[in-house]
Amino acid sequence: MPETNSEHASMITCTAPVNIAVIKYWGKRDEVLILPVNSSLSVTLHQDQLKTTTTVACSRDFQEDRIWLNGKEEDINQPRLQSCLREIRRLARKRRSNGDPSSDVSLSHRVHICSVNNFPTAAGLASSAAGYACLVYSLSRLFGVDSELSLVARQGSGSACRSLYGGFVQWKMGERQDGKDSLAEQVEPESHWPELRVLVLVVTAERKPVGSTSGMKTSVETSTLLKYRADSVVPGRMEEMISAIRRRNFADFGELTMKDSNQFHATCLDTYPPIFYLGDISQKVIGLVHHYNRHYQETRVAYTFDAGPNAVIYTLQDYVQEFVEVVRHFFPPESNGVFFQAGPGPCMVKDPDFHLLGPDGLPKKST
Amino acid sequence: MPETNSEHASMITCTAPVNIAVIKYWGKRDEVLILPVNSSLSVTLHQDQLKTTTTVACSRDFQEDRIWLNGKEEDINQPRLQSCLREIRRLARKRRSNGDPSSDVSLSHRVHICSVNNFPTAAGLASSAAGYACLVYSLSRLFGVDSELSLVARQGSGSACRSLYGGFVQWKMGERQDGKDSLAEQVEPESHWPELRVLVLVVTAERKPVGSTSGMKTSVETSTLLKYRADSVVPGRMEEMISAIRRRNFADFGELTMKDSNQFHATCLDTYPPIFYLGDISQKVIGLVHHYNRHYQETRVAYTFDAGPNAVIYTLQDYVQEFVEVVRHFFPPESNGVFFQAGPGPCMVKDPDFHLLGPDGLPKKST
Repeated sequence: MPETNSEHASMITCTAPVNIAVIKYWGKRDEVLILPVNSSLSVTLHQDQLKTTTTVACSRDFQEDRIWLNGKEEDINQPRLQSCLREIRRLARKRRSNGDPSSDVSLSHRVHICSVNNFPTAAGLASSAAGYACLVYSLSRLFGVDSELSLVARQGSGSACRSLYGGFVQWKMGERQDGKDSLAEQVEPESHWPELRVLVLVVTAERKPVGSTSGMKTSVETSTLLKYRADSVVPGRMEEMISAIRRRNFADFGELTMKDSNQFHATCLDTYPPIFYLGDISQKVIGLVHHYNRHYQETRVAYTFDAGPNAVIYTLQDYVQEFVEVVRHFFPPESNGVFFQAGPGPCMVKDPDFHLLGPDGLPKKST
Repeated sequence: MPETNSEHASMITCTAPVNIAVIKYWGKRDEVLILPVNSSLSVTLHQDQLKTTTTVACSRDFQEDRIWLNGKEEDINQPRLQSCLREIRRLARKRRSNGDPSSDVSLSHRVHICSVNNFPTAAGLASSAAGYACLVYSLSRLFGVDSELSLVARQGSGSACRSLYGGFVQWKMGERQDGKDSLAEQVEPESHWPELRVLVLVVTAERKPVGSTSGMKTSVETSTLLKYRADSVVPGRMEEMISAIRRRNFADFGELTMKDSNQFHATCLDTYPPIFYLGDISQKVIGLVHHYNRHYQETRVAYTFDAGPNAVIYTLQDYVQEFVEVVRHFFPPESNGVFFQAGPGPCMVKDPDFHLLGPDGLPKKST
């Protein structure tokens, strides 16, 4: 039940994690519903270091839906935001018409949303996944909805559906035109593989990359290799990756992670005009990882790159210290990194002191 | 008939051109016969600027086959060199057993070979194509062989078979296991499209790239996208490219050239471990070309990259001057370029002053 901490506003605060794909999502078969051309799989990072925090409030006194992101009011009428609000209200209405009393928050009241990331946007990590997961999860707690959340989050940002679960998460592409079977599910919880470590290696952003929404669109329209990858390569890789995770086989997991990152970037290069996310420094990180593994004749470290130059490194606890020293030796101090473990999905914050909105439904001064 | 300019040695000197592929060759289905996984197509550059010159001599006084490349004696026993010598002698023997008298040079005599490029190896242009084409063409003149030359040159260096013809040349991959149908043929002569220009843009070599022989081998073994490209993409592109050339349609020619270069590099990136030939500067050249074409809303300039960072630019005579100014404006002076037209195939040099070997069958002092 949402907590009512003022006369006027029902209020909920939640946090949600970032996820890093090991089988990459690139390309939509439906731009509005956000249905992907292939399934994908990610690891949810622990929220100790990176998370989005979102407060949602609802009151009869609110005149309109409003949203503040990282301290700045943004346009609530963005289509994807509207999709999420519309869908969550639709699900809540459906539950109530079925007699479910899990929330008494009125669906006719307007909502205020306030969201912050605890990591700088300069980190180049896709914050939209954590952001939309947190929004949808918070609204679901407010309105008393507890199923089909990944269908809603997916319509905000595709990979957001994977941030609704902890540990190892697959987004099944589904087959239906209405997208009802395009949803995320947990493969294994974060406790399954406690030795796994994730290093986000921030390299200097060399240029402004092509955004992923427009990049994907161009790739789907022009890359014949992307179509082949989606239809004929990824299905087998999803099975292999799930198997590697279940067996906690790092060599298999790491090799497939690297191959899939490379193939994703290959389809970007096969796009017309081509899209480049891997510059000289990224290429050097890749070379270093292969050199390191070759030295030990074993895959101890794996890289993956999203739509930007920053490397995400997967490894095991035993190799963390040595590999960090190797990185520090070859790369300048401005390329710094933080280590993570796999972590849980969204959480509700109980202490009302952590609400980002005040009793008046407006952002607190400190946020 | 080979010219006998001393008591001892029959001697022939020929020149052969460089070619630049617009549909790329990458991957062998037979490493020994050098049979490719897909057909390819190239433009032969005019020899005014770039060429290999080779003198071959034959004498009963020679004790063994010997070769000098760019002034330095090299090992004649390299397998590919041996393939060329063996094959050309086999063809000559076949002709003579059929009663053809076009050369009286004895096949039991040893040959001396001396070859020089008039361009620095630092230019990063694949000199092996011109080199093997020139070797095979010179030997064919010496021994009186005039067919199946591209089968012999192919066994020296795959793309060398395309340097045996001028203008626009395709290397048909063939289907036979013995490679008899894997040969080069001229699509159109150099006179077909006189407005076409080729700019070799030498960018600073940033690192030592993976050699093409070992790179191709790894790609064939590990890249699923390469197999798909070879089987399902290139056949259609060969037809489209031949059609664009026949129609002298630069927009079609240029766009397909760029797409095929990108797809070749995409398959390099899909190789495991990945192979990178396009660094930051190459990526900037690519960005500049697309920016320039977008400005004119027309494909006026096209890039292609082989297994190295240097850009080869195709354009039309009318746009040369402006585009060179644009390049000079955005790139430092060390990235310099030379313009070419399409040019003829190998030529025999009549004047004995140009022989690289002296009457004693050893390299002249000046070479």
